Amino acid sequence: MISELQAYLQAEFGIHFQDTALLAEAFTQASYVNEHPKEHLKYYERIEFLGDAVLQLFVSEYIYQRFPELPQGKLTRLRAAMVCEDSFSKFALECHFDQYIRLGRGEEMAGARKRPSLLCDIFEAFIGALYLDQGRAAVEKFIHRVIFPKLDQGWFDHAVDAKTTLQEFLQRNGDVQIVYHLLKESGSENEPVFTVNVSANGQVIGQGTGSSKKHAEMAAAQVALEALRHTKK
Amino acid sequence: MISELQAYLQAEFGIHFQDTALLAEAFTQASYVNEHPKEHLKYYERIEFLGDAVLQLFVSEYIYQRFPELPQGKLTRLRAAMVCEDSFSKFALECHFDQYIRLGRGEEMAGARKRPSLLCDIFEAFIGALYLDQGRAAVEKFIHRVIFPKLDQGWFDHAVDAKTTLQEFLQRNGDVQIVYHLLKESGSENEPVFTVNVSANGQVIGQGTGSSKKHAEMAAAQVALEALRHTKK
Repeated sequence: MISELQAYLQAEFGIHFQDTALLAEAFTQASYVNEHPKEHLKYYERIEFLGDAVLQLFVSEYIYQRFPELPQGKLTRLRAAMVCEDSFSKFALECHFDQYIRLGRGEEMAGARKRPSLLCDIFEAFIGALYLDQGRAAVEKFIHRVIFPKLDQGWFDHAVDAKTTLQEFLQRNGDVQIVYHLLKESGSENEPVFTVNVSANGQVIGQGTGSSKKHAEMAAAQVALEALRHTKK
Repeated sequence: MISELQAYLQAEFGIHFQDTALLAEAFTQASYVNEHPKEHLKYYERIEFLGDAVLQLFVSEYIYQRFPELPQGKLTRLRAAMVCEDSFSKFALECHFDQYIRLGRGEEMAGARKRPSLLCDIFEAFIGALYLDQGRAAVEKFIHRVIFPKLDQGWFDHAVDAKTTLQEFLQRNGDVQIVYHLLKESGSENEPVFTVNVSANGQVIGQGTGSSKKHAEMAAAQVALEALRHTKK
């Protein structure tokens, strides 16, 4: 299984591990070690401990640099959305890491191979092994391919409000004037409906409604973001 | 205050910041910014966000390498004891960082300058600024002086059991045979007292008692550790 993993990583990501024992350790669960006592194998938990901290720092550094105006609270929320079991288990599946995990029979039968907590652990352990074996640059190259594009694809929009995301999206290549304009206020006094549009350098790029001006602006920003992302593809 | 800090860091740690605005940011609290609106200052929170992750990784990496036999659970406990408000606020005081924080008057009067949470934040922010300005090697040099020696001084013994610490202490320069020997069992059936000694390569280095064999071994290891550390000074 490990030589197949080695070949897969080489073909898919251009990664060639020097220390294959370390790579094996990252993909081996305790249940497999227990079933093969004579092989004196190690399991992933120590490397996962390290990989978790590697991901915390490199994701922090990336969003710190990329969102220079984002205050600490929002940076923390965004990082929590990126560095979590839900995200990492999806990345692990996308990278087909599930196919290479070494599990004991009981765990295999219990469906551990698709369990988000295990997939997350394996993703972190892989990053830890990559960091130890190939250094910082290799990890950065990998996460620039696997993690950071998800920011542009809207995976983490829920963590940062749409207005902030739209601003960052539009101003990445220079200054753009973003204006929110209240078009109308309708509904009843108890249930008002606000309609707002948003324009970039004078061109309307989205419109939204909400129960407050702020909610309507968020909705308009979200519509604009989705349209812009659709256009980019 | 910042030019004095600059001079102090140079004299005490051999650190010369290129970007003094970044250094100033790391030592400035929001209350100071609010009192000086015309200066368009920044405060430390964003850099602290980064510094926290820098410390998490570098401490993780150090203990991962230094304690190759420590399982993940104990690594996590040890890291939590090292990377926490209590430790960082003490490091900040030891480095005299409290003298250089820029605070608003209200915060100053409220005694914020000695508040552990603020000292911890400033320590993290300083590390974040050092990382951005001088890179990884400068941070490692700094924490090898300020943080890691505390491991040998016993600051974090409560997080790792004394038997593990003694083993690591003795085996750092090669293999040493450590043996725990039950000397006697006394007390009553309900309140037994076990007495154990511990030897290194046949030489007794500590003795301890406890309500179980395990507790007695821990006590013996703790006595041995304290004696060894005392001898080393």
